[in-house]
Amino acid sequence: MPLFMDAHDKIDGLTAEAVAGAHAKDLEVQGQYGVDYKQYWFDEASGKVFCLVEAPDAGAAIAVHREAHGLLADQLIPVQEGVIATPSHA
Amino acid sequence: MPLFMDAHDKIDGLTAEAVAGAHAKDLEVQGQYGVDYKQYWFDEASGKVFCLVEAPDAGAAIAVHREAHGLLADQLIPVQEGVIATPSHA
Repeated sequence: MPLFMDAHDKIDGLTAEAVAGAHAKDLEVQGQYGVDYKQYWFDEASGKVFCLVEAPDAGAAIAVHREAHGLLADQLIPVQEGVIATPSHA
Repeated sequence: MPLFMDAHDKIDGLTAEAVAGAHAKDLEVQGQYGVDYKQYWFDEASGKVFCLVEAPDAGAAIAVHREAHGLLADQLIPVQEGVIATPSHA
């Protein structure tokens, strides 16, 4: 299934609790869209959030955010996950 | 150790092979800076790359990219990793 990274540039008043609550709502809603919000990272100071999500297409990922909490990402980038190689020397 | 997400907005000519090679060089260099580039995601079409990295501070993460391949991120955001809750219903 395609993988995407979304980026929220600035969510006003962002707290760890608020973003955890929003993410929990994504998890509640996502099944009906065939979406899997896998992980997220956030910064309270700047209000930035990154979400890693598997979805059939970008529209399905957007639909989950819209229905769950209405906080739509500023960017939604189709991504491939990098292959982590073993360093040739460490 | 602090966690950061960096974002490269557009690397011209980005390919999966090129980004894998650059990441491998990060892994070779990072030990001397106490840095751990943990994962990355990329999009060949747009040239965007996101790197998740643990580092003592932002400067150390930047120093690794500079020495390894010179491709510095456009943003380096201190982040917390989200706590993945179990949905109350699925």
